Formats: sequence, structure tokens, C-alpha cells
Amino acid sequence: MAIVVPFDDEKKRASADAFAILTKLVETDLARVNDCIIHRMESPVALIPQLAGHLIASGGKRLRPMLTLAAARLCQYDGDRQVQLAACVEFIHTATLLHDDVVDDSDLRRGVETANVIWGNKASVLVGDFLFSRAFELMVEDGSLKVLKILSRASSVIAEGEVLQLTTANDTETTEDQYLEVISAKTAALFAAACRIGAVVAERPTAEEKALDSYGKNLGIAFQLVDDVLDYSAKQATLGKSVGDDFRDGKITLPIVLAFRRGTEDERAFWRRTLEDMTQDDGDLERAIGLLTRHRALDDTLDRARYYGGMARDALALFPDSPTKRALIGIVDFCIERAY
Amino acid sequence: MAIVVPFDDEKKRASADAFAILTKLVETDLARVNDCIIHRMESPVALIPQLAGHLIASGGKRLRPMLTLAAARLCQYDGDRQVQLAACVEFIHTATLLHDDVVDDSDLRRGVETANVIWGNKASVLVGDFLFSRAFELMVEDGSLKVLKILSRASSVIAEGEVLQLTTANDTETTEDQYLEVISAKTAALFAAACRIGAVVAERPTAEEKALDSYGKNLGIAFQLVDDVLDYSAKQATLGKSVGDDFRDGKITLPIVLAFRRGTEDERAFWRRTLEDMTQDDGDLERAIGLLTRHRALDDTLDRARYYGGMARDALALFPDSPTKRALIGIVDFCIERAY
Repeated sequence: MAIVVPFDDEKKRASADAFAILTKLVETDLARVNDCIIHRMESPVALIPQLAGHLIASGGKRLRPMLTLAAARLCQYDGDRQVQLAACVEFIHTATLLHDDVVDDSDLRRGVETANVIWGNKASVLVGDFLFSRAFELMVEDGSLKVLKILSRASSVIAEGEVLQLTTANDTETTEDQYLEVISAKTAALFAAACRIGAVVAERPTAEEKALDSYGKNLGIAFQLVDDVLDYSAKQATLGKSVGDDFRDGKITLPIVLAFRRGTEDERAFWRRTLEDMTQDDGDLERAIGLLTRHRALDDTLDRARYYGGMARDALALFPDSPTKRALIGIVDFCIERAY
Repeated sequence: MAIVVPFDDEKKRASADAFAILTKLVETDLARVNDCIIHRMESPVALIPQLAGHLIASGGKRLRPMLTLAAARLCQYDGDRQVQLAACVEFIHTATLLHDDVVDDSDLRRGVETANVIWGNKASVLVGDFLFSRAFELMVEDGSLKVLKILSRASSVIAEGEVLQLTTANDTETTEDQYLEVISAKTAALFAAACRIGAVVAERPTAEEKALDSYGKNLGIAFQLVDDVLDYSAKQATLGKSVGDDFRDGKITLPIVLAFRRGTEDERAFWRRTLEDMTQDDGDLERAIGLLTRHRALDDTLDRARYYGGMARDALALFPDSPTKRALIGIVDFCIERAY
């Protein structure tokens, strides 16, 4: 007698496997990336490795550096440069997280107290600056102006995206386009750059660079949209994160943009009070989740994520089939299915 | 009948002239640097040029970019690269100031409200990140890995120095050596790099690069020591700055290090209360200035500044006499004499 596995569970397991498969594929390189990170965040100023190490060791998935490693592998690169460059990508990402946590006054990240809570905002700002500078030192050591151009451009696009997000914070009139502009810059630009440099080190034609850039960019957008949904989802609690952080911060994410537009005047008044005026009472988060559900704002945000995920998958079409290509496609599913 | 000019006034006038002479020497290039700065801090995110422009336009001396321009001129460089690289140096400096003002909770800079007061800490952190990234983009455009190496190294040394300063903040046991380590990193490293890249663009021998690095480094230390003295000096008020900011922040600068060591037990208890425990009452700043004066801590800090100034001057010995060399030597006097 056959055992029938419900479709959803099967999908979920397959996507969790996808992450394990990618990790396995790049594990040798990833161990070297971790060594490089530990070695290069050293400083005679003890607070620097302490603070940076707290965040770097606190259970991040290393998704971005893994993308660099996998992209280089997809391009059949057989050198060593991907290791140090993947560490650069993680340093830039870590610097951004340190500054983000200061800007958002965050207390928890990945279920662990944030560096700004333990060592204060000042130390987080300055150690972020250090990691960012160190990332550039590593890139200069690598010696490719092309890589430097890609990552310095990505860094300023990220910073622009962060400032744009700050200026649209608490603005319920934010449009879907504006929101996509923010996340394309603050999240997707680093995913795109992380993937692209895999093709650059392998000295592949521009078409492959662009394909990997597009894969990374669309994956990054999908990843961020799922993050936005998770913030309102019970699933979040199982990830050691608290539900409703974005709501309490007055962040206008895509689910809010959709629910605001689809809501009644009375509901809009609710969103304005809670997210613009930042007057929040007991029960408001529950009401918010109720409205998001009623207007299908969470489901439709996930639909958008699937749409970008589809583009990410298609971007890889020009590469011949290989275990690495399958793993990268699996990562798209992983990023989306983690919502469930 | 001869007019007798008192020695001190003469010196003071000569050093003010020195700044005007340097400005005049590089004025064509400096105008181009300013254009480059205005042009390259542009962004579709309007807050970025607004916030950055506030600080950049608020009457900074442009001393660091002028050093790059003058160093290139001293090395008889006749190309254009010094302009964009001088703008990079100013961007890095501005990014540092934005983050410094957040870290120090400063309200005023150059007599003008700081960006963090007007736009908030969050915007200052993120626009600082943008300027820093943009500086690297400009360097990558310039295309010299040697310049990139010098400035990425300087940036991480600066960040290390800032973190070191944070960890020694409010520690009256700080030694003179530790303090010199802090300012060598947080202030002098950028002066050194700014000067050195003048020799790099001119493709001069390493000896000249090193000479300009040494000039910049020692000038930077002297500059910072004079800044520390000015913070306790009536002269400060004439610069549109408030007296005693460092004291109120509990900053341990060289005058404090000297006065603490030379003081009685009773005086040390005073320094511990005011700078470690941060319990300050009316009259404490006046008592601090009294102690600094009685122990010659301000005068001796200026003596140290003169010592570093002497090294800066000597570092230029291998360059033949020229108006630019005389102007750079004049700048050493300017940096020291501004204390009076």
C-alpha cells in the first residue's frame, strides 16, 4: 500500500533539502570562507572581533557567500578567488545588519540579543564601518577592478535603498513600485552582486554575468517579500524571531501596501494611527494580522515572491544542467517555501 | 622709524597667511574638487544630497583634499586624477564626521547644528554609509589598485581607531602612548593617505611616497593635539565652537592624560568623578581648566604638537624648494598656531 504524502509537506521537505544540498555542494569552500572571516575580522582592538563575531557566529545562513561560491562553481571556475570574495560579501552584509539594527532599534536578531543591545549603538556603528572597510581591503587584495566596481556599486545602492526606506517609513501612501524600489536596492543588490562575481572570477561572457546578476536580483526580491510575510506569520516564532516587529517599527512592507489600498476608510484610519502616528494599543497587532488575512495581502505578497522566484529560475536557463544549477534552482524554492 | 611687530602676532599672521597661500596655489583644482563633490553626492534619494550637502557646505576647511592637491603638485604631477581622488578623501572624511557626531551625540559642528540633530541619527548613519561607498566607487573609476589599497587600509585603520577610542572613553588611566595610538589611527591615517596619493598619481619613487605619508601622519597628529587643546581654550569660542565639549563627553584627551598623572590624589578623584562617573556640576569645567593650566597640560600638549610638526616639516626635506613645499611647511605652522 502506497503512503500518500500531502503535497505541501512534500514541497516543504524538498525545499529544506535544497538548502542542505547547496550547503553540501559548497561545503569545502564554505569552511574556507568561515576561516577567512574569522581570520580577517581580527584586530588588536579586542571589541572588534568580539562584536563582529557575536553577529557572524549567531547562526546566519551564510546564504549570500554561498551564492558566490555556487555561482563560481556553476561557471566551472577552478581557482581560489571565490573564497575571499565570498567573505567580502558576508562582511558587507554583516556591516549592513549592524547599522540596520541601530537604525531600527532592534533587540533581537535570529533569536539572539543584538550587538547594539549588548555593546551599544556607538560600537555597532563603528564596528560596522570597520567591517565595511575590511571588505574593501579584501577586494583590493583580490585585485580585480571589475569585482571592485560591482561591489562598490552594490554598496552605494544598498545605502541609497536604506535611506529611501527611511524616508518612506511610516508613510502608508507608499506605492507597490516605491516599495519594490526600496527592496531592489537594500536587499536584492547584494544578492545580485554576490552571484555576478562568480561569473567574473571565472571570466565568463557578459551574458552569463548578467544571467547570474538577474538570478540574484530576483531571488533577493523574493527573499525579502517572504521575510515581510514571515514578520506577520506564526511561522516566525519557530525561527526564534518575534512576530510583528515590522508593525511595531511602523515599517511599510508590501503586505501593508496591499491591505491599505484594499481597505475601507475605517481600516485606513487604523493603519494611519498605528503606522504613521505610531499609536499602538493592545490588540492592534491582532487586528492588523486579521486585516492582512482578510484582504489576502499575505497570500498575494507570496504570489509576488513566486513571480520573482520564477524569473530567478528562468535567468539560469542559459546554463547547462548540472547539480549546481539544480541546487541554485532549489534555493529559489527554499526561499519561498520557508514562509510555510 | 621702524614699526616693531610683536613676535607672536607676526607668527600668527604668517600662519594664517600660510593657509591662504596654500588655498591660492591649489584654487583651480579645489574648485574642480568642489564641483566633483557636489556632482557625485547626487542621488535620486533627495535626503542624501540634502544631508551630505549640509555638512559639506558648512564651512569645512577642505584641508585633507587640499593636501592631496598640494602633494600631487609638489610631485610635479600634471594630470587630472588628483581632483577626483581629493573628492574621495573628503567623502571619507565626511562619512567619518557623520558617524562621529552620532557616536558623540554632538549638537554643533563648526558652529552649525549637526545633521544628526536636524535629520536624526538614523539618517546620519545611512548617509555616512552612502558617502563611504561612493568614495570607493570614485576610486574604482580612477582605476589604481595602489590608491585603492592606501585608502581602504586608511579607512579600516580609522574605524579601528574610533573603536579603540570608544573602549578607552571615560578611562582616566589611559596612557599617553595609548592616546597617541588612537589619534594616529582616527585622525592621522587619513592625513597620511591624502598626502601619499599625491605621490602615487605622479608615479614618484617610494621614498617620496613615504615622505609625504610621514608629513601627513605627523601633521595629522599635531592637528589633533591642537584640537584637543582648543577644546579647553577661549580661542575655541571665536571658531563658533563651544568650550568643554570633550569634557562634557568624558573624552580622555592628552591634556587630561597629563593633568591626571601630574595631579594630587584629590585632583585624580575629581577627574574620576567628572570623566569616569560622568557626574559633573556647575563649576567643574572651570576647575578642570584651572587644573589643566596649573599642571601646564595645555602648554605641554602644544609642545608635543610642535614636536610632531617638526617631524612633518623634516619629512619634506627630500623635495627641492618650491612654492608648494613652502606652502606645505606653512600649513604645519597654521595647524599649530591656530591654538592661539
